[in-house]
Amino acid sequence: MNQAKEINILRIGPEEKNKEKDIVIEEVPFTILANEQQLVTLLCSPDNLEYLAAGFLLSEGLVRDKSDIKGVSLHREREGYYVSVKLDGSFQIPENFFQKRLVTSGCGKGTSFFDSQDVMNLQPTDSKLQVSQDEIFQLMKELERRSSLFKTTGGAHSAALCDQTAIKVFAEDMGRHNAIDKVFGECLLKDISTEDKIVLTSGRISSEIISKAAKREVPVIVSRAAPTDLAVRLAEKLRITLVGFVRGKRMNVYTGSSRLI
Amino acid sequence: MNQAKEINILRIGPEEKNKEKDIVIEEVPFTILANEQQLVTLLCSPDNLEYLAAGFLLSEGLVRDKSDIKGVSLHREREGYYVSVKLDGSFQIPENFFQKRLVTSGCGKGTSFFDSQDVMNLQPTDSKLQVSQDEIFQLMKELERRSSLFKTTGGAHSAALCDQTAIKVFAEDMGRHNAIDKVFGECLLKDISTEDKIVLTSGRISSEIISKAAKREVPVIVSRAAPTDLAVRLAEKLRITLVGFVRGKRMNVYTGSSRLI
Repeated sequence: MNQAKEINILRIGPEEKNKEKDIVIEEVPFTILANEQQLVTLLCSPDNLEYLAAGFLLSEGLVRDKSDIKGVSLHREREGYYVSVKLDGSFQIPENFFQKRLVTSGCGKGTSFFDSQDVMNLQPTDSKLQVSQDEIFQLMKELERRSSLFKTTGGAHSAALCDQTAIKVFAEDMGRHNAIDKVFGECLLKDISTEDKIVLTSGRISSEIISKAAKREVPVIVSRAAPTDLAVRLAEKLRITLVGFVRGKRMNVYTGSSRLI
Repeated sequence: MNQAKEINILRIGPEEKNKEKDIVIEEVPFTILANEQQLVTLLCSPDNLEYLAAGFLLSEGLVRDKSDIKGVSLHREREGYYVSVKLDGSFQIPENFFQKRLVTSGCGKGTSFFDSQDVMNLQPTDSKLQVSQDEIFQLMKELERRSSLFKTTGGAHSAALCDQTAIKVFAEDMGRHNAIDKVFGECLLKDISTEDKIVLTSGRISSEIISKAAKREVPVIVSRAAPTDLAVRLAEKLRITLVGFVRGKRMNVYTGSSRLI
């Protein structure tokens, strides 16, 4: 599937004004069904939608292993797409799933963020992974090189799973969450281990990005952008190495610097 | 309320490696209650939370006018904040609100995006507003000048409501949706008209941003970032002028160029 569309624009520069063709990123509604029950409609870029569906189910804690997914089928329908995921016959949408989804990253009134069920269930990582500064610079360079949708449209986020030397799984999407869900979903469906691996992202690191990585036991998260204070505190608690603002030969190490050599 | 936090980081440069203080953007859980019923917990930057609550209610179609809001009170609780909004006694959370919220921007299985109820209810604007290129360049320069949270943390989005010559309402937040909701919420609570005005944003323009602006009858949306194809198509349908990639003396006009003089 193509993820970019050609449109007509008026391009205005310092001296000129021209009607031109331009390329913008495609946005489609994408519905995920689990055992024929509608879970969510995301707005996303239309590639690797099976992976996005699997990654979404992982991030939401609705599946844990590949064996939980009995089948995934993608369908096109008018403006959008839907994926029908077959889970165990006993699967039920958890009570309050729809309400809980709105309690993004845990806390509600009367509960501390760090006491919330979602965060409490996350285990600190004890990964012994070591990675060098130069490896991080090289990996981020490779992420940028592969981000063709961003280069074409300026409107895409990219994410990848890698070891110290190479990208194993790569995804782009209009949303930073979707890009990461696509990566983890592909890992799940292809039996690619995420333990002792590194996640790269072009996007900002909020607490939810840390939660997603922690659920997949990823010990190192690297971004070219900024983290939030809650992301830094959560990464510290979960002993995740969090590196931000990787640009050229510079980076900020927010937590877990002992993994950097 | 402060929206930035000082933390310790390891800053790595081409030749050096130093333990330093750094400033990151604050992220807090923020719960919105309507008549004591919990609607949502957002993750956001903790300022202007009354405006964020009002803007969220507007964007979700739960209120339409200032008169719908009988009172707004902000409370701090442990890690986060909550706002209790008093609405008419007859207010009830619409059936399927929680599920519908997941159908972001409309469509679900079996329905065309453009046929969805949310989008169908939006009216094309007939605003006669005219704005010059130079005014747009000046306004975006002013948006950047005022984006102090972005300058300090690199992790903030900014949004503003303005006329052709000046910014009237300005907001920053870790999320591009939150920043725009804060602007519209402030307009609502302070009786500032949004008709025939311009919305500026630092963030990407997805279809949901167009919907939010259309609900407030804003005829011109200007961004320094990229739009999606669905945003362009929706803006065209609603006769909204959509300008993107405003950088220096350049910009792309995607729709509604007749308002540009």
